[in-house]
Formats: sequence, C-alpha cells, structure tokens
Amino acid sequence: MRDLKSKFLDVYSVLKSELLNDPDLEFTDDSRQWVDKMLDYNVPGGKLNRGLSVIDSYSLLNDVKELTSEEIFQASALGWCIEWLQAYFLVLDDIMDNSHTRPRSTNAGTKLQKIGMIAVNDGILLHNHIPKILKNHFRPKPYYVDLLDLFPEEEFQTASGQMIDLITTLVGKKDLSKYSLPIHRRIVQYKTAYYSFYLPGACALLMAGENLDNHVDVKHILIDMGIYFQVQDDYLDCFADPKVLGKIGTDIQDFKCSWLVVKALELCNEEQKKLLHENYGKSDPACVANVKALYNDLKLEDVYLEYEEKTYEKLMNSIDAHPSKTVQEVLKSFLEKIYKRQK
Amino acid sequence: MRDLKSKFLDVYSVLKSELLNDPDLEFTDDSRQWVDKMLDYNVPGGKLNRGLSVIDSYSLLNDVKELTSEEIFQASALGWCIEWLQAYFLVLDDIMDNSHTRPRSTNAGTKLQKIGMIAVNDGILLHNHIPKILKNHFRPKPYYVDLLDLFPEEEFQTASGQMIDLITTLVGKKDLSKYSLPIHRRIVQYKTAYYSFYLPGACALLMAGENLDNHVDVKHILIDMGIYFQVQDDYLDCFADPKVLGKIGTDIQDFKCSWLVVKALELCNEEQKKLLHENYGKSDPACVANVKALYNDLKLEDVYLEYEEKTYEKLMNSIDAHPSKTVQEVLKSFLEKIYKRQK
Repeated sequence: MRDLKSKFLDVYSVLKSELLNDPDLEFTDDSRQWVDKMLDYNVPGGKLNRGLSVIDSYSLLNDVKELTSEEIFQASALGWCIEWLQAYFLVLDDIMDNSHTRPRSTNAGTKLQKIGMIAVNDGILLHNHIPKILKNHFRPKPYYVDLLDLFPEEEFQTASGQMIDLITTLVGKKDLSKYSLPIHRRIVQYKTAYYSFYLPGACALLMAGENLDNHVDVKHILIDMGIYFQVQDDYLDCFADPKVLGKIGTDIQDFKCSWLVVKALELCNEEQKKLLHENYGKSDPACVANVKALYNDLKLEDVYLEYEEKTYEKLMNSIDAHPSKTVQEVLKSFLEKIYKRQK
Repeated sequence: MRDLKSKFLDVYSVLKSELLNDPDLEFTDDSRQWVDKMLDYNVPGGKLNRGLSVIDSYSLLNDVKELTSEEIFQASALGWCIEWLQAYFLVLDDIMDNSHTRPRSTNAGTKLQKIGMIAVNDGILLHNHIPKILKNHFRPKPYYVDLLDLFPEEEFQTASGQMIDLITTLVGKKDLSKYSLPIHRRIVQYKTAYYSFYLPGACALLMAGENLDNHVDVKHILIDMGIYFQVQDDYLDCFADPKVLGKIGTDIQDFKCSWLVVKALELCNEEQKKLLHENYGKSDPACVANVKALYNDLKLEDVYLEYEEKTYEKLMNSIDAHPSKTVQEVLKSFLEKIYKRQK
C-alpha cells in the first residue's frame, strides 16, 4: 500500500510536468512557477483516498493478472483527475465559505486579498487541467468519450448538491424547520457521493472495458456508501477528537444541515426543539454547548452507532447480492476503507 | 438578422427548459427556480455576438443551400454554449474583481454577501451546463468528441490568459516597467481571442464536417482578429463616449495592462515616463486626468487609428490569401462585424 501511494505520487510529478511544459501554451516563467506552486499546494495534500481507489478497484477487476506499469500509470492518472477535481471544489468552497483568512491557494509575496481573487482563477485552472490530462493519456482509448462524458456529469451532480445546500442553508431566514432527512439525503447524495464514490468506481470500470450502463446497480451501491460516508463526516464533526480528526468541527455554528441536527429534530420533544431553534447556528460558545448537551441528552452517539451498524449490514447484503464476485470485491474494498473510520 | 436573433433566443428557451427538467436530477422547487432566474440573469443579456457568429459562419459555409430548422437549432445550441461559457467567465470575473456591490448573479430576498458565495456556485453550474447541452444535442454526431475536446481547450486558453493578466497586474509591486507589447499580446491572445473568435469559427467548421487540424491558418487569422478586437476594447475604454459604450472605463485606475499604456510607454520621453509611473493605477481623478492628458500629448488616438487601418489591411490580405472563397467569406463576416466598432 505504501508502495502504491509512492507510485501514485510519482505519477503526479509526471502529470504536473506535462502541464507545465504544455506545448500549446507559451508560459511566462512567472506563470509556470505560479502553476507549479499552486498545484503542489492544492492537489497532493489530502488523504488521496478517491484517487487511490481507482487503482485499487481496477486492480481488483483484473485479479487474475498483475498490473502492467502502463496500467498503473493510467489508473493513477484517472485517480489524479479525481484529486484535481477535489482540489477545484476545495478552492472554490473556501471562497464560498468566505474564508479570506485561509485561502488554500497561496504564493509568497502576495497580499491576501489579491490571493483571494487569483484563487478563483486557480480553481478554474485546476478544473481545466482535467481534460488536458485525459487528452494527453486517453485520447486513443475506446472509452475516451465516456470519460469526457463522465467527469462533467459527476461534477454537475456535485455542483447541484452544493447549490441545494447553499440555498437551503443560506437563503431566507435561518429556519431549522426546513431541515429534514430527505433534504439531507438529497444534499449529500449529490454533493459528495457521486464524485467521491461513484466516480472512482466508474473510472475503474471504464478502464476495464465495461459499459457503465450495465452497472446501474454498482452505481446505486456506491451512492449509498457515499451517503453513509457523509453521515460519518457529520457525526465526526461533532463527536470526533479534534486531534484525531485534524480539525475542529463547526457545523453547529455554521447552521449546517447536518445528519445530527436532522436526527435531533426527529427525536426531540417540544421543549428541546425550542432549545435547538434558539441555539443552532450561533457562534456563541454557550449556544454551541447547549446544542451539544442536547445531542447528548438525545443519545445521538448511540443513534449514530446504530445507524452505522444497520447501514453496513444493508450495504453488505446489497453487495453480496451482486452476481459478480469480482465486483463484490471492489465494492467491499470501498466499504472496508470507511467502515468505523475515526477521521 | 432580427429574425435570426429571435430564432436564436427561442433556442435559449428550449435549452433552459431541458436543463430545468433534467431527468438525472431531482430538483427541489426552490433550486429549479433559482437556476431559472440565474440563467435569465446571466446568459442572454449581452450582445450575443459570439453565439450568433456560429450560425452566421455555418450558414456561409453552406452557402448553396438554405439551412434546415434542425441546422439552425444545432448551430444556435453551439452558439449558446459559447454564451454560457462567457456568462461563466463574467460571473467569476466579477468575483475576482471583488465587486461585491455588483454581483451578476442575484436573486431577490438574499443578502448581498450570501449572494457572493452562491455566485461562485452559480458560475460552476453555468459551466456544467455546457457538456449537458452538448450531450443532449450532439452525442450521436461524428464530431461530438471534437466538441468535447474543443470547449475545455479554449476555456483552458482563456483561464491561462486570465492568470497571466492577474499575475502581471496584481502580484508584486505596481510596476509599469513589467508592461510591454509582447506581454499585452500574450494576455489578450489567450484571454480573449481564443474563445471569442476561434471558438465560434471552430464550432461552425466542426458542424460543417471539417477537421480542425486542416484549418490552422483559419485559427491564426481568427486569433489575430481577436487580438485586434481586444485592442479596440482597450482603446474604447479610454476614448469612447460612455453613453455609446454603455459603461465608464476604468483601465487607468485599475492599473490594467492596456494597449494604450503599453503604446504610451513605447512613445514617451523620460519625463513623460516619470509622469506615467506616478499617475497610472491610482483612483484619484487628478491622476487619471494626468494620464489622459499624456495620452493626448502622445496622440494615441491617431496611433490607434493607424494601428486599426494597418491591422485591417493585414487581416484582409491574409484572408484573401486563403484558398477557399467560402472560408474567406466566413472570415470577412467576422471582421466586418468589428471593424471600426464604437462599442
């Protein structure tokens, strides 16, 4: 696994170098350096799970034979396209969150406000690199056009989820009664599940010569897994140890349509509901503490653990019902990576 | 022409309705309304020249026969993809220009700051609509994959030009000595010429069954025309009547790498250069007036008019050298639309 990650990172260097030496573009030295730093800052920093999943899945789909170095390179390149997409989303998310103080896209010697402006363009560039990478490495493949359909499609789902989230959370009055389990599910399905779970699986299937239209059942299972993943995220935002999680959750302060608040609304009595309405979405630490106390009163940790068990069981049943043992293995490898995760 | 524009606008309504009724997406009522308003606000408002050029050019390429209504629809759909791209650029440009006070993406009942955040996502959605439109109407065409290559490629050129512009203008000290004719040319070539001139021409060529690799000369001519177009823009920003232009130019205040300042740097003596360095890029009206007075002393209007004449002549010569009369006509129709324009 460590070996795989280091091979994966080697491919990043190759892809970056191709982009920086693009013959179609007369880069200035300044702009080449800018893109170089901007990529290093934004693309390879995270857990890289989405990207690595493509190689894992493709290798499981080809279980009889060892992957050639060309196959490893290509699966990695597709994986990196997903990481590039993720970087694009994060850069623009940060701008949307109005986080002038923590821009992901930075270069020394530039004032913060200017960075904010250039960060939008950095996001656009990150996005534009994806078709470049696909063209550089997949143009002659029979599934090239499917890749060109797939990436924008999954990006569209993500942006649509983001839109539903933004409209629900921000437009009009802060009104908790707008939040419900179906709205939460719709947001996380579109915003997270498609690009984080379906997209890596779909890339591996295309590379393996499969027609995606024949794998609608795989899509549904991966989407359900993505929803479970986001519920975990919502749970960890409140209940994880910030040292393990690597950040301090702020969903309560930010009035987020979190699985926890949706569950709380479902379970609480009238008095508790009043408390929730009065305290949710405020940055005052006392209000946050009141919400957390209510979550504890409602035993939301236990409710979550029960949800996790049931979801795992349901997903395993769906997977076991799939006719292909190989596809079962791919799906299980996705599930094992996230089941009971702590960060 | 008026008839063509009204047909073109009819196609917009069809495309919008398809996007709002996308079977792949479970829209909420709120989000469907949001996208509906967002599209009307951002997409069809401008001069639509880029979009209309596709139909004009395609119709010239098919001069022997009248266009069928299907051909008009398809050329219009490609034209609208370019207008969608333009809307995406403008939404994100406005965010980059930090213009919280004039967001292009607005919906009633929302506070301004929130709009700013949602506008980023509006931009992403606009962008995502392009592959949707292409897929809905061109999936079975032999040139579908060429369209899927073309749009991201031209978008990439545009974002790269924007990056060179942003880095040159904003990073480091305000230092006029960075500005020169080659830098100006590079910025406007990438930032404007590719998507405004080459892209509409390339769409028409693809629809007409041409291979773009055989039309590199057409590309060069359209790019040169796009550069001329942007020089006009820079000239009009300072010298046009704001009532005719429809806006008040602010290139001097904004320290823009404009063709005028680059020419001024080329022509001025040491004393005038000092004045330029001291006054360019400041919002103080006295400084702006000093720069304008210098432009007049250097007779930049005459310099521009001479540039315009020479460029027109050069472009006409290149066009007349093209072996195909039909292609000549297409190129001339592009040039006639912008020669000596006042807005």
